[in-house]
Amino acid sequence: MQTASTTRIAPRSGTAFRLAAGQRLTVTDPEGVQVADLLAFGEGDVGEVISNGRTFDYEETIRLTTGNVLWSNRSNPMLEIEQDSVGCHDFLLTPCSEATFRHFYPDMPVHRGCFGNLAEALAPYGVMPDVIPVAFNLFMNVPLTSDGRLSVEPPISRAGDSITLLARMDLVIGLTACSAYSSNGGSFKPIDYAIA
Amino acid sequence: MQTASTTRIAPRSGTAFRLAAGQRLTVTDPEGVQVADLLAFGEGDVGEVISNGRTFDYEETIRLTTGNVLWSNRSNPMLEIEQDSVGCHDFLLTPCSEATFRHFYPDMPVHRGCFGNLAEALAPYGVMPDVIPVAFNLFMNVPLTSDGRLSVEPPISRAGDSITLLARMDLVIGLTACSAYSSNGGSFKPIDYAIA
Repeated sequence: MQTASTTRIAPRSGTAFRLAAGQRLTVTDPEGVQVADLLAFGEGDVGEVISNGRTFDYEETIRLTTGNVLWSNRSNPMLEIEQDSVGCHDFLLTPCSEATFRHFYPDMPVHRGCFGNLAEALAPYGVMPDVIPVAFNLFMNVPLTSDGRLSVEPPISRAGDSITLLARMDLVIGLTACSAYSSNGGSFKPIDYAIA
Repeated sequence: MQTASTTRIAPRSGTAFRLAAGQRLTVTDPEGVQVADLLAFGEGDVGEVISNGRTFDYEETIRLTTGNVLWSNRSNPMLEIEQDSVGCHDFLLTPCSEATFRHFYPDMPVHRGCFGNLAEALAPYGVMPDVIPVAFNLFMNVPLTSDGRLSVEPPISRAGDSITLLARMDLVIGLTACSAYSSNGGSFKPIDYAIA
């Protein structure tokens, strides 16, 4: 449910905002089967950035859910997952971009994707496109076979599913409603978020 | 076998060098059971850097071996694996560092690790520590369980095993003989490399 304190991200768009240490960010998939790419940078020093490799190392898993921490490139805790009604997210793949649209959908219109949306939203905070890393892709469903092959499947999130992350330091957050066909089951829906 | 054209990287150290488009880099584990962290940056523009996320996306696997390409953050092919006598490498984990030594080996002496070795070796090329990403960790053995949990096991590489990578663009390479206990079966050995 979209409340007065909820902000809606339109389909195939993105935004950025500050999240202070101790605040909680709840991201909701209001219609279901929709991915949201999440990035985090140090507020005041965007050289510090969310890192899938540091997170995999310290959490000893590639499947992050309630109780796991998302770590920075400088080995500091950035966000802690406090609530997760889905339990299926991806931290392997980079944000979709013009190049990934040309690669995976050569017969479809090219879109700037989450990469372009994040680059524009984060530019006012001093984030350059080259330093945009692998995002924590909320609700994204990327199963692996036993020999390491991956596929991008429709999210298992249903309308109203959500995840809540506690900020462990002052952050700048980038957040999208993902733009890629296969990541979202072939249709583009909004994403809601609230800060408390 | 160490030949006249082979350069040896001493245990727990690292180096950096240019690799021109069309040149081949062969990295050999001369004694066996030893990891080498490999990084690649664009020569002349180190804002372009090897990306595990772009590589996983385009190669559709997290297990890279002969025939796979390692991609940059700008969606360009950087290196192509032409020969691989091991077939077991890691592209999930960041280079070991002072912070990872304190985390995983609280009772052992702290070492600057591959991160510190790479930061020093790459500084003359203009690479700042914050942009050091997940390395392609040659010979590193990181199995995953079906639910995504990972562990760092001794490499399966034997004395003389090697991997050959073809440069698809002009590159600056960072390369180490890894410094972490568990990554290398508890002992630290050299790494050899040759450019042809």
